[in-house]
Amino acid sequence: MSGDGGRPGSRRRTVLRSAVAGGLGAAGLTTGLAAGARPAHAEGARKGAEPPRTRVSILLYDGFTALDAVGPYEVLCRVPGVEVTTVARERGPVLTDTGEMSLVAARAMREVRRTEVLLIPGAGNRGTLAMMEDKGVHEWIRTLHRHTRWTTSVCTGSLILGAAGLLRGLPATTYWASRPYLEKAGATYTPGRFVEAGKILTGAGVSAGMDMALHLASRIADPRTAQAVQLGIEYDPDPPYDTGSPEKADEELEKLALKLIDDAAR
Amino acid sequence: MSGDGGRPGSRRRTVLRSAVAGGLGAAGLTTGLAAGARPAHAEGARKGAEPPRTRVSILLYDGFTALDAVGPYEVLCRVPGVEVTTVARERGPVLTDTGEMSLVAARAMREVRRTEVLLIPGAGNRGTLAMMEDKGVHEWIRTLHRHTRWTTSVCTGSLILGAAGLLRGLPATTYWASRPYLEKAGATYTPGRFVEAGKILTGAGVSAGMDMALHLASRIADPRTAQAVQLGIEYDPDPPYDTGSPEKADEELEKLALKLIDDAAR
Repeated sequence: MSGDGGRPGSRRRTVLRSAVAGGLGAAGLTTGLAAGARPAHAEGARKGAEPPRTRVSILLYDGFTALDAVGPYEVLCRVPGVEVTTVARERGPVLTDTGEMSLVAARAMREVRRTEVLLIPGAGNRGTLAMMEDKGVHEWIRTLHRHTRWTTSVCTGSLILGAAGLLRGLPATTYWASRPYLEKAGATYTPGRFVEAGKILTGAGVSAGMDMALHLASRIADPRTAQAVQLGIEYDPDPPYDTGSPEKADEELEKLALKLIDDAAR
Repeated sequence: MSGDGGRPGSRRRTVLRSAVAGGLGAAGLTTGLAAGARPAHAEGARKGAEPPRTRVSILLYDGFTALDAVGPYEVLCRVPGVEVTTVARERGPVLTDTGEMSLVAARAMREVRRTEVLLIPGAGNRGTLAMMEDKGVHEWIRTLHRHTRWTTSVCTGSLILGAAGLLRGLPATTYWASRPYLEKAGATYTPGRFVEAGKILTGAGVSAGMDMALHLASRIADPRTAQAVQLGIEYDPDPPYDTGSPEKADEELEKLALKLIDDAAR
């Protein structure tokens, strides 16, 4: 425990220890930015130290996997200068693969013609196949990709990048159960939580998006910022089991994992 | 790679290797369940092996932290018999702490009077304080808690459980920067990614909800199921840094982490 600001009952009411004396609580309780306003920009302007603007656009589509989008969002949203937005065919709620959760797309695809970072989350079988066949989405991805600093995917999102023609001749990764399908896109499956190939960054399945995003945070900002973000989300993983990759599982467990995904899919 | 179903170009088009011959792809492509329908039930009914129903209700509120809710959702939604739903004061979009993402609450609090599992996510300073003062929410939490099998929290959600009077005399955990505030609720801070005290399960900060949910999955179902879910979300964490807890960070990094949270808060 460090600093006086952390003492319960200190001047400002707060439930997080203060970053600077009286700082965190004060900002949390007194700022009145409109919903969706750019907090980092506001902070930057106030302090005369505006960081370069980095727009991160996360594609949402029917049947996407929530954590593929939210893991990287939670890492990137606190990197100075980063603005995260969610994009779908139309603005509004988009249902996930299980049908038990919806995230809201803040913008429609036609409203987003430039972005510094594009992130394509993965989905179950149905959602991924639909996106792999959607020529309009491919055109949108290619248009954005011309000017991105980073074009990224999580899980089967790499198959969508592949269908858009972006992975030809490149090393890439994807969801473990989808590795054989990367070759159809002309990519070479490469082991790893994430694979960097020029400005294309592909992540492995679902939760790997968090590891990929920490790497991305260090490239957008610097390693120290990425480390602070890791601490900020208390990402000190310690799962009660160690069966998170097929290399650590037996064939029966693989079958059960895929059956559970199948059964929960809408 | 196991099984013929995994070969690209096999009979059914699929982008995930099949759980059973022709199974996964077929189900993904051909079932037409309505949005929000209960897939596991439907499966169970079809197979004559209905698992016991476990409703998981995740509270969403203004300023909550997205990953606190989505991490556990992504783990629990595929446990057989589990139905996850999102609940807020009113149905509809609920904005997160950064203002850059919204999740949709499927149900209003008044519509949810029973649940087997209650999950209270955490928030930044502003969102947490508001919930700690909301007597109506505390009453709702206590009413549900009477009949839950598990009452759970992630991050500063434990301070909300505490404000509702549920943690008196119990060991519990919370977000690292909020540890001193647990005592005000009469709880004893206890280290760990999650702490089980009777039917109350508290998780540490943000990403710890995933570890907690895997434990919960094993208690709702069995360890084998939890292990399969871990593989299903490829949760084989390998962050590029090792600064995810204050024990692994220096004081300056703690300050930077809290500053980044502060700057990104709306």
